[in-house]
Amino acid sequence: MTEAGATFLDRTVDRLGRMIRSAAGEARVRITGQVRPELPEDDVARLRRQIDTCLSARGGEVSARARAAELGTTYLGLAPTGRARFLQLLAEEYGIDQERLDAALTAYAAADDKHAAAARLRTALESDRVRLLRQFSSVPQGVKFLVDLRADLAAMLKRQPELAPLDHDLRELLAGWFDIGFLDLRRIGWDAPASLLEKLIAYESVHKIESWSDLKNRLDSDRRCYAFFHPRMPDEPLIFVEVALVNGIAGDVQILLDEAAPASDAHAADTAIFYSISNCQRGLAGVSFGDFLIKRVVEDLRKDLPKLGTFATLSPMPGFAAWLAKEEGTVDLVADIARSNWHLEPETAARLEAPMLRLAARYLIATRNGKALDRVAHFHLSNGARVERINWLGDTSPAGLRQAHGLMVNYRYKLDEIEANHEAYVAEGQVRAIGAVAKLAKG
Amino acid sequence: MTEAGATFLDRTVDRLGRMIRSAAGEARVRITGQVRPELPEDDVARLRRQIDTCLSARGGEVSARARAAELGTTYLGLAPTGRARFLQLLAEEYGIDQERLDAALTAYAAADDKHAAAARLRTALESDRVRLLRQFSSVPQGVKFLVDLRADLAAMLKRQPELAPLDHDLRELLAGWFDIGFLDLRRIGWDAPASLLEKLIAYESVHKIESWSDLKNRLDSDRRCYAFFHPRMPDEPLIFVEVALVNGIAGDVQILLDEAAPASDAHAADTAIFYSISNCQRGLAGVSFGDFLIKRVVEDLRKDLPKLGTFATLSPMPGFAAWLAKEEGTVDLVADIARSNWHLEPETAARLEAPMLRLAARYLIATRNGKALDRVAHFHLSNGARVERINWLGDTSPAGLRQAHGLMVNYRYKLDEIEANHEAYVAEGQVRAIGAVAKLAKG
Amino acid sequence: MTEAGATFLDRTVDRLGRMIRSAAGEARVRITGQVRPELPEDDVARLRRQIDTCLSARGGEVSARARAAELGTTYLGLAPTGRARFLQLLAEEYGIDQERLDAALTAYAAADDKHAAAARLRTALESDRVRLLRQFSSVPQGVKFLVDLRADLAAMLKRQPELAPLDHDLRELLAGWFDIGFLDLRRIGWDAPASLLEKLIAYESVHKIESWSDLKNRLDSDRRCYAFFHPRMPDEPLIFVEVALVNGIAGDVQILLDEAAPASDAHAADTAIFYSISNCQRGLAGVSFGDFLIKRVVEDLRKDLPKLGTFATLSPMPGFAAWLAKEEGTVDLVADIARSNWHLEPETAARLEAPMLRLAARYLIATRNGKALDRVAHFHLSNGARVERINWLGDTSPAGLRQAHGLMVNYRYKLDEIEANHEAYVAEGQVRAIGAVAKLAKG
Amino acid sequence: MTEAGATFLDRTVDRLGRMIRSAAGEARVRITGQVRPELPEDDVARLRRQIDTCLSARGGEVSARARAAELGTTYLGLAPTGRARFLQLLAEEYGIDQERLDAALTAYAAADDKHAAAARLRTALESDRVRLLRQFSSVPQGVKFLVDLRADLAAMLKRQPELAPLDHDLRELLAGWFDIGFLDLRRIGWDAPASLLEKLIAYESVHKIESWSDLKNRLDSDRRCYAFFHPRMPDEPLIFVEVALVNGIAGDVQILLDEAAPASDAHAADTAIFYSISNCQRGLAGVSFGDFLIKRVVEDLRKDLPKLGTFATLSPMPGFAAWLAKEEGTVDLVADIARSNWHLEPETAARLEAPMLRLAARYLIATRNGKALDRVAHFHLSNGARVERINWLGDTSPAGLRQAHGLMVNYRYKLDEIEANHEAYVAEGQVRAIGAVAKLAKG
Repeated sequence: MTEAGATFLDRTVDRLGRMIRSAAGEARVRITGQVRPELPEDDVARLRRQIDTCLSARGGEVSARARAAELGTTYLGLAPTGRARFLQLLAEEYGIDQERLDAALTAYAAADDKHAAAARLRTALESDRVRLLRQFSSVPQGVKFLVDLRADLAAMLKRQPELAPLDHDLRELLAGWFDIGFLDLRRIGWDAPASLLEKLIAYESVHKIESWSDLKNRLDSDRRCYAFFHPRMPDEPLIFVEVALVNGIAGDVQILLDEAAPASDAHAADTAIFYSISNCQRGLAGVSFGDFLIKRVVEDLRKDLPKLGTFATLSPMPGFAAWLAKEEGTVDLVADIARSNWHLEPETAARLEAPMLRLAARYLIATRNGKALDRVAHFHLSNGARVERINWLGDTSPAGLRQAHGLMVNYRYKLDEIEANHEAYVAEGQVRAIGAVAKLAKG
Repeated sequence: MTEAGATFLDRTVDRLGRMIRSAAGEARVRITGQVRPELPEDDVARLRRQIDTCLSARGGEVSARARAAELGTTYLGLAPTGRARFLQLLAEEYGIDQERLDAALTAYAAADDKHAAAARLRTALESDRVRLLRQFSSVPQGVKFLVDLRADLAAMLKRQPELAPLDHDLRELLAGWFDIGFLDLRRIGWDAPASLLEKLIAYESVHKIESWSDLKNRLDSDRRCYAFFHPRMPDEPLIFVEVALVNGIAGDVQILLDEAAPASDAHAADTAIFYSISNCQRGLAGVSFGDFLIKRVVEDLRKDLPKLGTFATLSPMPGFAAWLAKEEGTVDLVADIARSNWHLEPETAARLEAPMLRLAARYLIATRNGKALDRVAHFHLSNGARVERINWLGDTSPAGLRQAHGLMVNYRYKLDEIEANHEAYVAEGQVRAIGAVAKLAKG
Repeated sequence: MTEAGATFLDRTVDRLGRMIRSAAGEARVRITGQVRPELPEDDVARLRRQIDTCLSARGGEVSARARAAELGTTYLGLAPTGRARFLQLLAEEYGIDQERLDAALTAYAAADDKHAAAARLRTALESDRVRLLRQFSSVPQGVKFLVDLRADLAAMLKRQPELAPLDHDLRELLAGWFDIGFLDLRRIGWDAPASLLEKLIAYESVHKIESWSDLKNRLDSDRRCYAFFHPRMPDEPLIFVEVALVNGIAGDVQILLDEAAPASDAHAADTAIFYSISNCQRGLAGVSFGDFLIKRVVEDLRKDLPKLGTFATLSPMPGFAAWLAKEEGTVDLVADIARSNWHLEPETAARLEAPMLRLAARYLIATRNGKALDRVAHFHLSNGARVERINWLGDTSPAGLRQAHGLMVNYRYKLDEIEANHEAYVAEGQVRAIGAVAKLAKG
Repeated sequence: MTEAGATFLDRTVDRLGRMIRSAAGEARVRITGQVRPELPEDDVARLRRQIDTCLSARGGEVSARARAAELGTTYLGLAPTGRARFLQLLAEEYGIDQERLDAALTAYAAADDKHAAAARLRTALESDRVRLLRQFSSVPQGVKFLVDLRADLAAMLKRQPELAPLDHDLRELLAGWFDIGFLDLRRIGWDAPASLLEKLIAYESVHKIESWSDLKNRLDSDRRCYAFFHPRMPDEPLIFVEVALVNGIAGDVQILLDEAAPASDAHAADTAIFYSISNCQRGLAGVSFGDFLIKRVVEDLRKDLPKLGTFATLSPMPGFAAWLAKEEGTVDLVADIARSNWHLEPETAARLEAPMLRLAARYLIATRNGKALDRVAHFHLSNGARVERINWLGDTSPAGLRQAHGLMVNYRYKLDEIEANHEAYVAEGQVRAIGAVAKLAKG
């Protein structure tokens, strides 16, 4: 049993998988006998050799992937400056092999069997770093590792535009891995693990979850919460949506978030209000799940609660206040609104309501280069929703007042209009809105 | 609630998903108002329109994928001739868009930002059918649908070589989806679902499972069975391996398969014998899992049973008899062997043993174009195993006698030699064998 | 860490639990240094001491229960004669403590607080062996151990009537533990563990399961199978029922068991036929589950398949042939029936049908001491079913011909009649049968 | 399908189970057409009839249990005064059937077969209410219903001593159902359902859990938490224990509860400190789980963390301050201690330490009627632990100061002494303490 000692599998996949796993939650890990945390110039050469070995595939694919795990721990052991250098190395030196590509292009031009030549050309167009990064699929925690690595990258991109090709490659790789077909939709309730629920608290980005009792209210019997998960990151939500089951379209988010309000009967509700959608993984920016999430949740809700007939959002208008500030002829309004707590003065609020609603309608319906001005509007319109209603004083939280002077919008997903709405918006840049809103905008 | 009636989601994903699901097990389903089972010429145009609509992405990606489900049911509703025409259409008309590719090639040549131009070139190199088939990832049972479609294709390829590009595209697409990192390794025991176990009986391809009691013996306490699964095909094994836990390297598969033999103590065993590895999905031919399976199982076994020190196979030599028949100077032997039941005559068997072992050693060690002559040998050698022992009368079943005159081989996975063995074989075409075998071959 | 060595917990619960577990499936285990397998006279004294120690509760209840585990392994290590002596010892020496009981009776007679005195009297009425056996509840596998011990006992009772008090105590103890409220109802399908399904094959007692494909047919999409389980014996069914979903009341069990017949659409069925109910644990004889099983399954079926409106059995008449043999005036019939394969002679069968049906009706409706003559009839009638139909040549298997000359009965559970039927039968000894059957009996 | 309408099963088990379930969380439910919430005199007769029907077993046992469910909803629909009357009725009118008992006593005296007569006597000693309450085992949520009913009862017992027999019967019934052998031990971590974790917050009775982050700290990687559950109340912990994994015996609970302290390495710990044990169900008062919980957790910890060698508690002395106030010759001390925040004055604390530790040692070692004075001491001593150490300023929380002037005790479970310690204490009333503590007490 002499081989029970140091073996290639011990040295690599198993042990390093463990290290990656334990390291994932920590700021960084010092690894002795390897590159130093700041990755000084001398160590870059050593790192380069390590990467080259990974790419060489010496010893077979199992060995190669084990070495990828080792490279992952190297990265996790680096300080911020070291990580920046690591990523820069990947971005600058491990692109497409130009020589191989040129040969493939020449071969393609001359080829009789264009199909085979195209396949070889496709291979030649794959950069070395993509080949390297793909090996992480089989490293324990390797998928989450790449997602987090891309989140690191996002923080550096502005100052280091030379990292863009790496970011682009990573996005493309992750978009393939996170194909909507491979995600799991799960309903999350109050009986979900606390370790998962605390992530909802951390990731909620529309209406901050203030406490565990706030969260519990959002998971009550008249609410639903759904998230997408990837099989290789089963404890990490990718995106989640919060839904309230009500009668009639809701216009005031404070009422929905009021912990003291009693739960209503979900089985009697006729309307599902999607009042919060949050992306959870910064490293998946640009990989889109929202449209699928909404439509899969609509399906699930209709199966579970057949009385539901109306599906709508209660959404913020994050860009409205900024847009308004630049609009002409709104000086009077802006002065009023600039006062803190204007919304608590009945007279002021009454005076502002009509002009503000009109402006909001104009803002929502307007497009620039075929796109709605508001990013949330753009998201729902391109998914096939229509503008249904604008709600005065729908969100008087500090954030709601700051972003949109307390206004909120309902976008409605009418199932038999979704395709047409989508086409109208995407193909012709036309915003579909209910008559009343359209009229308001013109008024 | 007027929208509660027929909706786009109803019409498509949900209903069709169900249809695909229920249809999957059946020979075919007649779909009224659609193309006819034989896909006569008139209907090809209709099918072409259906495919074009899928590719147009009208109505957004959710709608597009729903239409893919519809196309799937169309396919499942076809008779064999119809299916062949369907596949031919895909193979011949939905390749790379040549115009777009030419433009991308020109653009690439002229581009300053080669990275961005390469990305566009990569996109242009993707055939339309790949874009179409990729949509099946999110169709319920869509992954299994494509795997089975490729199995259909395999049966047609010989007579219809024009289908090769489609097969190639499918293999590449599936290879990405079935990346080893996304598979689940599961141990299968006698407490596994009967509906899964009956698949092992069906898929076993090395030593036929004769009955449920034969299967139960192979899942006894001194045995292990592992399989890889894909998260989107959780009830379908992709590949499985059967392992016997014994003392010393086993050389006789009949003993392992003897249902009457009592189970030994797994925790006292020093050797794990991999005596059967079967691929389960014909549609995944060319997508390789075996190497990873063996090495992941070795890891798992070592964790679970720390006394295990030796990992080896007990393998058939499927090509030996055919090779022998063409070797010169073996006439006498062949005459003996041609008699049925020669192995039951002690004298004949004794006379044959030495020359046959020598010939087998030569067969195993020989290479042609850098590859071992035997496909099983090639598999294990390229995974880093070495030839450990040749076993006289190791498999006297009809198949064992027919393929290899009853001979079997042990390939041994010595953990600290795997990388070197792999390199020697792959890089230099050198077969690593234990001294005794090498000597035998020379003798 | 000196206490890491031999500890009381090691010595007992853990190790012995393991031993009981591994021993459970084996015929017997030799335990050295303890009593000998045959339990010779000398060893009885040793065993008596062991039992007394268990009862003494020395060292607290955890210790006491650990010693019970030890006693369990002693029992499992005995040969049949040893076991018989062990049980005899329990039956004869560990009954009620007469002295304590007399004192409690006297105290009760004199007591002011009758409630407290009654409680003490109840305690005094509990035999020592019951106190001992109850400790097995917390021994791993202890519940199954007692069930199997009572099965051993059942085999000895006839020759050793002195064991009856022990059997009676065990039955009472187990009846409390297996209270219907603590059982789990589980539906069993083809995706159940093979290790569970093979138990159905072993335990089926009405219509033998011939093979795994026979079993698969009984678990097909137009069938249902349910079983009760106890939380402490999760792998052991206690009783199971097989149900066919059909249209109209089925009268021929061969049709139901025909593997070649295609599955019908369960969701279109209007009738559920309970065609087999088997008790699985001989050690639970006299503890009744069948009534609850049928009614819980009816509930579950109605929820799952709302189109089901009729619930009936297709039952054997196990006592009919024996009864008929003793009836006067049936000599002619009996002569016919005595011939093998008479049922294959159309003429004979036609001649016999009318008189046999009439006799069967008389047999079913007759009572003796307020009970139906047939034990299966008694079971269903006391559950509130009525006699619905008698089926000529309903079971022409050898067993069906032997027991009831091929006749079968349907008992129907009409939900709004169950209470009244039950009362009529139990309180007044009146068999409820549909008019046609009643008329037939009189004819 | 005429029977699809109102059926006995509909009318009862199913619907009422639902009602009990939904009612369980509510204060009370008005049931129309039944007894009024206050249970006025007129309605008592109606209730009596309802109870009598339950006891009559008319229609078979399934029906009878269904009626028990109905009775349960009646109870849940009552106001507090109505519930008190309901319970009084059970306590006063549904005791033992005196006539039947007298007959059984007479029969016993005269019987030849004493065993059979004893069985009948046992049956006659069972009160009608026990027969009634036992039916709840099979009512959905029926077990929890009875546990909660006994909690209601506990609140009334002081003012209504006539309820004692009912309480006694219930305790005995529940003690049988909650036999330790039928409970599940589960480890609870931060990945447990939030709906379960909030119950820990509610039920913790030793060191209040202040917040979710306090809770998270108690479930960190260097902690363990275990609870017992009953299979029929799977979401309700019965008792739970919190354990800290440390090096050396911990003496200061504030350190353990400090959220800011970093987690230590559980796998390196040599000592497990049980620092909080809380019973969760008031209705199970008098049914004991603690001894088993500690010993099963010790077993589990030793298996999981083989380096653990010491198992001890860090316990409060809830009766110390009250005892001290009555001791003679402690006037000076008491004056000091009466000052708030004396423990923050180093000089005072130093002056008090020696005399207080001596008094605590005397308090712990003293017994009255063979029992330790302190109830926590009594619990651990009767489980076989010994007094290991007294900790000065071990708990300076308000509760800790109020109950025991900040003192805490370690009780140690030395595995090879447990039996002997238990015997010494239980049989001879002797408190086992480590030498230093014994000396301290004498000093």
